[in-house]
Amino acid sequence: MTPLTAGNARVKEARKLSRRSVRSERRLFLADGPKAVEGALGVPGCVVEVFATPSAAQEYADLLAPAEVTLVDDRALASLSDSVNPAGLVALCNFLDVPANHPLWLGESALMVRRDAPRGPLVAICADIRDPGNAGTVIRCADAAGADAVVFAGDSVDVYNPKTVRASVGSLFHLPVAIERDAAAAVRAAREAGLTVLAADGGGEVDLFDSDELLARPTAWLLGNEAWGLPEELAALADHRVRIPIHGRAESLNLATAAALCLYASARAQRG
Amino acid sequence: MTPLTAGNARVKEARKLSRRSVRSERRLFLADGPKAVEGALGVPGCVVEVFATPSAAQEYADLLAPAEVTLVDDRALASLSDSVNPAGLVALCNFLDVPANHPLWLGESALMVRRDAPRGPLVAICADIRDPGNAGTVIRCADAAGADAVVFAGDSVDVYNPKTVRASVGSLFHLPVAIERDAAAAVRAAREAGLTVLAADGGGEVDLFDSDELLARPTAWLLGNEAWGLPEELAALADHRVRIPIHGRAESLNLATAAALCLYASARAQRG
Repeated sequence: MTPLTAGNARVKEARKLSRRSVRSERRLFLADGPKAVEGALGVPGCVVEVFATPSAAQEYADLLAPAEVTLVDDRALASLSDSVNPAGLVALCNFLDVPANHPLWLGESALMVRRDAPRGPLVAICADIRDPGNAGTVIRCADAAGADAVVFAGDSVDVYNPKTVRASVGSLFHLPVAIERDAAAAVRAAREAGLTVLAADGGGEVDLFDSDELLARPTAWLLGNEAWGLPEELAALADHRVRIPIHGRAESLNLATAAALCLYASARAQRG
Repeated sequence: MTPLTAGNARVKEARKLSRRSVRSERRLFLADGPKAVEGALGVPGCVVEVFATPSAAQEYADLLAPAEVTLVDDRALASLSDSVNPAGLVALCNFLDVPANHPLWLGESALMVRRDAPRGPLVAICADIRDPGNAGTVIRCADAAGADAVVFAGDSVDVYNPKTVRASVGSLFHLPVAIERDAAAAVRAAREAGLTVLAADGGGEVDLFDSDELLARPTAWLLGNEAWGLPEELAALADHRVRIPIHGRAESLNLATAAALCLYASARAQRG
């Protein structure tokens, strides 16, 4: 088969997925590079097809064995990738998130965990996260900490943004992700599912490193925007507001590192 | 005074500091925005002058009171800033790092801590860190965790890179920073100063969350490159190799979050 060129209609259609509006309408997105493609192929029904250059198709033949591969030339591949140095393969993927009006993200993950593991579930709710790289890093941290789901709530960045997909280094495909425009509704759903909601809040009344008993509970962490944190009325909906102690003169931590500290503190307490 | 324009000789000279080679030669760099300028003004002898637009000079009059302010027009200011939306003030600063052949970074910080606080010193040694944003975030985390110094070792990114300065959100000015091209020499210096060197290493023999006794010691954390981690021979120089447990399916954590987890685990154990 002759590799498709950048002018090919299918390549052009796929390229339109760089726009959020097109992604949302079609519920399709692009996963760029071997880590992301591998992750996507691990989720049944996720990958529609993989665009690959002939050389990448050879190099990643094992990884691509279960995939429908469409060969494209270098220029066509580059037009689908947002990497400076594309690795040569991009998967066209179906959206993975559970619809907001169907909160399986809590029910399923909670049930799953209760059956299989001697610990409460652990969920991260991100409210109004704006930076695509941060969002991906939070997903990666949540995965590493063994969290059961990540919820993007409020006016958050698109989880299918290419930068988010890349920063998650495959973790987007490892754990359930949900989108809920109404952040307060996400908090209420978590509480109704029996999770203790902990708001990460620099002025919180609880010290993260002095509350293992609290952290051992089934937990949803509520994380706010990079610049302005959590709106007061949202933090007030949480069961507790938890601060990461600042020992030096830094004013705060960045969002992804704060998320890692909170989620790992929970993992430590829950797995004790 | 009429604000200087972008064509002014002093502005043009300052603008050359966007190049690492010019920074290194003159031992001068630019700190962009109110957080960085505030931090720089907190370090005696650091700020040579502050370039500010007339409106920023008014808005930040209190902050700038102790500074030598040079008014510049908007275009001149933008030419000195690497921000998309410059805040209107940029400080011309002297380098802050302690020279590599003068390891005060250990001696001073260790002494300082031993006198003032009931805990061992805590230092981060970054080996071959390449991403300027990561480097700044590590400095910010180290500051937040109450660390006493950060060492950029080996072939690391320039700590005075504008992206690094910005990502540190002022923390570059809060704690001693040292540069040591020979990473092994930095590790040896730390051990000679009585610090236990812990290498952050995914395959390490010690679990970060199961070693508080070890972490309570005076500690230098050795952190490796974003992509390939620590070279084996460097990790072997450490006293112990410590892994952050990965509970989910993520392969690893990103550098800045790993640094935050390690430094905060030490802070927790040392301050216990």
